[in-house]
Amino acid sequence: MELKNRYRNTESMIGHGNPSFTSAKEAGLLDLSVHNTGRGTLSLPDGREFINMCSCSYLGLDSHPDVLQGAIEVLQRERTLCMSISRLRIRLADLDALEEELSHRWRAKTIVTNSASSASAGLLPLIASGHLLPDGHKPILVFDKSAHFSMNLIKPICADETHVITAPHNDLDFLEDLCRKHARVAYVADGFYSMGGVAIVKDLFHLQDKYGLFLYFDDSHSLSIYGASGEGYVRATMGGEVNSRTIIIGSLGKGFGTAGGAVMLGPQQHADLVGRFAGPLGWSQSLSIPAIGASLASARLHGGADLAERQRALRANVRYFDERVPTRTAGEDFPIKIIDVGPEPLAVERSRRLMAAGFYSSAVFFPIVPKGRAGLRIMLRSNLSTEDLQRLCDAVLELAAPGTSEPLAS
Amino acid sequence: MELKNRYRNTESMIGHGNPSFTSAKEAGLLDLSVHNTGRGTLSLPDGREFINMCSCSYLGLDSHPDVLQGAIEVLQRERTLCMSISRLRIRLADLDALEEELSHRWRAKTIVTNSASSASAGLLPLIASGHLLPDGHKPILVFDKSAHFSMNLIKPICADETHVITAPHNDLDFLEDLCRKHARVAYVADGFYSMGGVAIVKDLFHLQDKYGLFLYFDDSHSLSIYGASGEGYVRATMGGEVNSRTIIIGSLGKGFGTAGGAVMLGPQQHADLVGRFAGPLGWSQSLSIPAIGASLASARLHGGADLAERQRALRANVRYFDERVPTRTAGEDFPIKIIDVGPEPLAVERSRRLMAAGFYSSAVFFPIVPKGRAGLRIMLRSNLSTEDLQRLCDAVLELAAPGTSEPLAS
Repeated sequence: MELKNRYRNTESMIGHGNPSFTSAKEAGLLDLSVHNTGRGTLSLPDGREFINMCSCSYLGLDSHPDVLQGAIEVLQRERTLCMSISRLRIRLADLDALEEELSHRWRAKTIVTNSASSASAGLLPLIASGHLLPDGHKPILVFDKSAHFSMNLIKPICADETHVITAPHNDLDFLEDLCRKHARVAYVADGFYSMGGVAIVKDLFHLQDKYGLFLYFDDSHSLSIYGASGEGYVRATMGGEVNSRTIIIGSLGKGFGTAGGAVMLGPQQHADLVGRFAGPLGWSQSLSIPAIGASLASARLHGGADLAERQRALRANVRYFDERVPTRTAGEDFPIKIIDVGPEPLAVERSRRLMAAGFYSSAVFFPIVPKGRAGLRIMLRSNLSTEDLQRLCDAVLELAAPGTSEPLAS
Repeated sequence: MELKNRYRNTESMIGHGNPSFTSAKEAGLLDLSVHNTGRGTLSLPDGREFINMCSCSYLGLDSHPDVLQGAIEVLQRERTLCMSISRLRIRLADLDALEEELSHRWRAKTIVTNSASSASAGLLPLIASGHLLPDGHKPILVFDKSAHFSMNLIKPICADETHVITAPHNDLDFLEDLCRKHARVAYVADGFYSMGGVAIVKDLFHLQDKYGLFLYFDDSHSLSIYGASGEGYVRATMGGEVNSRTIIIGSLGKGFGTAGGAVMLGPQQHADLVGRFAGPLGWSQSLSIPAIGASLASARLHGGADLAERQRALRANVRYFDERVPTRTAGEDFPIKIIDVGPEPLAVERSRRLMAAGFYSSAVFFPIVPKGRAGLRIMLRSNLSTEDLQRLCDAVLELAAPGTSEPLAS
């Protein structure tokens, strides 16, 4: 019998994870069906309202009038919801306009996809096979241990092409050691991690300069909120052109405020191969037409004064939260705050109490974080009023912060 | 060195496929940037117009006024483009309404996803691990050789959970032999295949009755166009409730006319596990809000007189085409017609000539079909006028049908 479960362990994921999901559901924290009230809250069927502190729309662009109007306008003009053919063959001119706008703003050949995860599903196997590397040879492929699920899912596909290794999180020595031993190494990581923390981007580019390390970043959580044109943390750190040993992808459904994903390539890279052979990117489901229209509007907002103002408001809210609530992510210039709790039932209970106070936080537990290290995830946004932010901090300190003592609801 | 390229061969795919893509591009058949004229044609930047004979929107629902208005109305009401949180935690009430409408129409617990391919990426590994099987034990997992790329891509992930086999296309004896030898077998197939042809659905359900065979169908190409409520070929053939040994998925971006995917489950199946552990289905990018509104409108059209009328018009167009143009897919009650050509350059040339006559057909070649067996793919639709359909058949017979002789453009 050949070796199984080298890259995933579904039995463990479900066996250990499902009880926590079930208790979160019982605590009223899952499967919430809502309407947007338009006054900063979401409403439940029973009329209760709450503030969603787990929206990744960090800049509130999802409700920008231009973004909404962009979706409506393209539908009124083109009178179709979908082309229903591979974008490789025929695509709406607006999709080209969107990619041109983003390519200009982000100084990278930008390809728009149906989601960030479909981008990774398409691209990572072509990196594993060497086709997206400058010399066309297969690299050793190294995934950061904390890389997002959407990339880890693809590991076995990559392992059918080349040797795949999982590296300790942000471990530069481990990577440099591999670079010394192997002619070609490619490293797969988040730019900013969904559970807090950031890639050691400058160090990684230094390894690239020294050894030719290939870098693949999913920078979903910093797109739009970082960089003068919202190009994200990795792209902003990189500067210049995107070089032939780096690919950055990200979601347009977070700070960008719309839907879909984006791939940033350099001028020397094989954009044609990506369009033709990167799996989901060439199949018939490309980004839906209203999302293209909305994204084009959001792209036009990037780099303008409105974006910069929203970025500033977000940072002010992050700083205020950090000053009031101690977390291990305090001081990071990013909006994801993790409150460590420990036992899974306690995290669910604290999230339940915050919800009763009108704030939705995610209780996060295995397989999202290691067993016994559950916590609460709170995402800050630019579009939180000072009063709401103060009330949030009050509620967190009273109900959910480290050191809060309470009996478990039994 | 361990065995590589057991499930994919990127080098062959690109090495053999890319020259054909390049010649198709040079012939003006790829990367077409268009506007929809609203009069049945698409227009190119130079003003030329053509009829897209490769749209999978078989019923024209993509441009139904209710569908367009559904997208606009939800944006005007909810004033947001995306929730930017996992649907497992919080989702727009309209998404619940959409799933309820589809569940009612299709008599199956229906979960809406961001795409059909993300549904397969999420579900197939849980079938491989046994978690979606009635007894929770791992099956031998058998992929039909002609299953769509979106399922084949996931093979190595499944192979990290269980033994994966590729079966000859529609080979009942091969499957029955496996069922005799193994206690649990799961089979992965298209319902209606994207290159023409249909699964032997009744025979497969017979094997299910006899041996407990688990069946996973991607029925993207027959959803909406088949069945009284557009439930698709497999679901219509099945009747009754969806049993615990069958999962059907499909795209909402084809006949349905909008975007996203759908998963049909039976009442005994583990919908909670799907929402929590099926990879992309639980990540933060669910179907975008305008697509939800459009899909709810389309769902409401399903089962009504309008749908039945469009289905009839489609069948009439299929019959007319079959009477005039001989293909190996003639007589099939489905709209995908394949015209076999053979050499790749000849398929590109014939597609180019059809395009010059105002009709876009796909030149299909390796890796879409085997090497040296290139062809043209033509998709019929309900919303083709009699005159356009006649002109299409005239053009195909003159320029592209079997036996057409022409020197290759050099």
